[in-house]
Amino acid sequence: MPAHWMGAENIAFLIYPRFTALDMVGPHYMLTSLMGATTHVVAKTRDPVASDTGLVFTPSASFEDCPADLDILCVPGGTLGTLAAMEDDATLRFLKARGARAKFVTSVCTGSLLLGAAGLLEGYKATSHWMTKPLLPVFGAEPAPGRMVRDRNRITGGGVTAGIDFGLALVGALRDRTYAEGVQLLAEYAPEPPFDAGTPERAPAEVKAILDAMMADFIVQARRTGTAAFARAQAL
Amino acid sequence: MPAHWMGAENIAFLIYPRFTALDMVGPHYMLTSLMGATTHVVAKTRDPVASDTGLVFTPSASFEDCPADLDILCVPGGTLGTLAAMEDDATLRFLKARGARAKFVTSVCTGSLLLGAAGLLEGYKATSHWMTKPLLPVFGAEPAPGRMVRDRNRITGGGVTAGIDFGLALVGALRDRTYAEGVQLLAEYAPEPPFDAGTPERAPAEVKAILDAMMADFIVQARRTGTAAFARAQAL
Repeated sequence: MPAHWMGAENIAFLIYPRFTALDMVGPHYMLTSLMGATTHVVAKTRDPVASDTGLVFTPSASFEDCPADLDILCVPGGTLGTLAAMEDDATLRFLKARGARAKFVTSVCTGSLLLGAAGLLEGYKATSHWMTKPLLPVFGAEPAPGRMVRDRNRITGGGVTAGIDFGLALVGALRDRTYAEGVQLLAEYAPEPPFDAGTPERAPAEVKAILDAMMADFIVQARRTGTAAFARAQAL
Repeated sequence: MPAHWMGAENIAFLIYPRFTALDMVGPHYMLTSLMGATTHVVAKTRDPVASDTGLVFTPSASFEDCPADLDILCVPGGTLGTLAAMEDDATLRFLKARGARAKFVTSVCTGSLLLGAAGLLEGYKATSHWMTKPLLPVFGAEPAPGRMVRDRNRITGGGVTAGIDFGLALVGALRDRTYAEGVQLLAEYAPEPPFDAGTPERAPAEVKAILDAMMADFIVQARRTGTAAFARAQAL
């Protein structure tokens, strides 16, 4: 085995009430394939945390126990849960502290709004779920094209399933192509989506209109909550 | 909203020690999008269950509390954890009882070995993780091509990430195409794998050889454990 296949990364995934489990579990699968790495699932306390679809996770660390120096900090998204997390000063303080020192500061889906609220995307190109991408300038971030956007040590992924692509790409960057291909083969990651509606450009207009209507209130609320959190976080 | 977009399905995911979380969380994301459906995460007891990558889940139901009549029973895979589950009579008994009555009996990845051990794939075409697919005849099942194989009410998916395609396809079958396209767009499911090694045919020979060597002992053990479990389960 090539020596560089063994590492020693400290990786932390933030979880919080009503986060989207797949945003986290996709990259978690990929990153826990890194031999020698240690992965933490971190929440405000060690109490169980319920996802937006009712999956209940027990964190492996609280904000207090989480190592100060992380190689990868990864923040999954959620809908109303993400807004509530933005309103929580302890969460913003945790993100500011770990984000200032982490080698890679990353997010999946609306997790970028949380990074943004904590001031971690100011002056960076970034992405988010397609619905919340227009909100990035609220945090001083510049929306950029791509399912995954890297700007220096910030890596942000698009909605939900983008976390799988992001995680696998990061495995390739941290080990090498052969290693990542092994992980891809183990995950049998040769996707065959049964429909072709995964982006606003490719989805039928009718489908996009339904989601836009469904999420309109959330977007208004996210802009308001995000603006306030970003202002408040600067003083934390 | 079309009336048929609202349903009333009872869905249960089995979890067990060292299962692969992504096998479950992928289709769980998709199936919990079914308006009106109730989703259970079922384990032997209500105690927390750790996945093979160390994610800790609290089940929502034990074998005893799980409804007798399910619309969808879904069994995720795992590696050594799946073999241990095959050796557990309570798990086999649960699968036999719920599988005999469920409208759809489904699996992702090596979850098909558990269905097989419980006698639920006898006489059915099925698939599994590409590495364990050759073991299906042990259970009287016939390996069939495809990332997802449906034979009457049995639906089996390939390795890990195949669960996402399977889940979305099932949403389409249970509601309609427009509904499923909405879910796909919400999940931003327009995958862009950073490498092209997701099947044994597409992966470089070197990469496949590494995994074959890594898993050789497991395959031998899975055949032995599967054969014994299948014989034992008939009498349960």
